[in-house]
Amino acid sequence: MADSPVVAIEHVGIAVRDAETAKNRYRTMGFVDVRTEDLPGGIRSHLLRSGTAYVEILESTRDGSDLARFLARRGEGLHHLCLRVDSLAEATSVAESAGCGLVSGIPIEDVRGSRVFIHPATNDGVLTGLVEPHAVGCEAEPGPG
Amino acid sequence: MADSPVVAIEHVGIAVRDAETAKNRYRTMGFVDVRTEDLPGGIRSHLLRSGTAYVEILESTRDGSDLARFLARRGEGLHHLCLRVDSLAEATSVAESAGCGLVSGIPIEDVRGSRVFIHPATNDGVLTGLVEPHAVGCEAEPGPG
Repeated sequence: MADSPVVAIEHVGIAVRDAETAKNRYRTMGFVDVRTEDLPGGIRSHLLRSGTAYVEILESTRDGSDLARFLARRGEGLHHLCLRVDSLAEATSVAESAGCGLVSGIPIEDVRGSRVFIHPATNDGVLTGLVEPHAVGCEAEPGPG
Repeated sequence: MADSPVVAIEHVGIAVRDAETAKNRYRTMGFVDVRTEDLPGGIRSHLLRSGTAYVEILESTRDGSDLARFLARRGEGLHHLCLRVDSLAEATSVAESAGCGLVSGIPIEDVRGSRVFIHPATNDGVLTGLVEPHAVGCEAEPGPG
C-alpha cells in the first residue's frame, strides 16, 4: 500500500441548469471543449479543459434524475471531485481503510479509465471519484471526465 | 489577452464541521499536512496535499461566520474551487469579459500568491478563486491554499 495513492485532482463536476450558458462562459475564459456525452441516469456531461484544469459541466436530461434532485435541493454549484490515482485497487483499499464507503464496489469502465465513487455521506459531503487512467501519460489530451 | 489564462486546478475547498476527523481521513488516504492558518472571517484553513492534489479543509471558528452560515444552509461539502493562472490581471479581465463578477476587485495577497474570487452568483453557484503564485515553480511544495 503506497503512502500516497492520489496523484492529482483530475476534474471537478459542476451541476448547472443551463449548460450552454455555462460552457460559453468557460470558453470565454479560454477553456476548450473536450467531449460531450450522455451518461446513465439522465445526465449530460460536457467536459472542458484549460491547461491541466478540467471542468465537467453536468445537466439533467429528464425530470426526477439524481441530478435534477441535486439541483432542486442544493441549486447550481460544485457537484463532485474526481481524484486521479495510479492504482484504483490500491486507492480503493486505502479509502476504505480511511472509513470511506463506496457508491458501488464495481468500477465504472469508460474510454478514459476505471473509476469508483466514494459516497458523500462518508467523506464530508463530497461525492469523490477515484479514477485510474487506462494508460500512463494519457491525461493531457482527452484525459479525464 | 491569452487564449487560456487558466493553467490548473490549484485546490478545492471543503467545508466541514469536524476538521480533525476530516484531516485524519485524508491522512489515511496518503495526504500530508501542508499548513493550518486562521483566515479573516472566522475560518480556520487546513491545507493537505497528495501528489499535485491539494484540498483545503475549512472549519468555522465562530458562530455566525460566513462558513457557519454555509454549513447551516448547505451542510458539509465542496465549498470553492481555486484555479491557478499565470497572470491574475489577465485572468481577471477575461473572467469579467465572460460575465463573471468579482467578490472584490482588490487582490488578496498572502504568502502563496495574489488571488481574487469570482462571485458564485455569476458562475453557476461556484465560488471560484483565481490565484497567481508569487514565483514560477513554487506550486509543488508549499503551493496553494
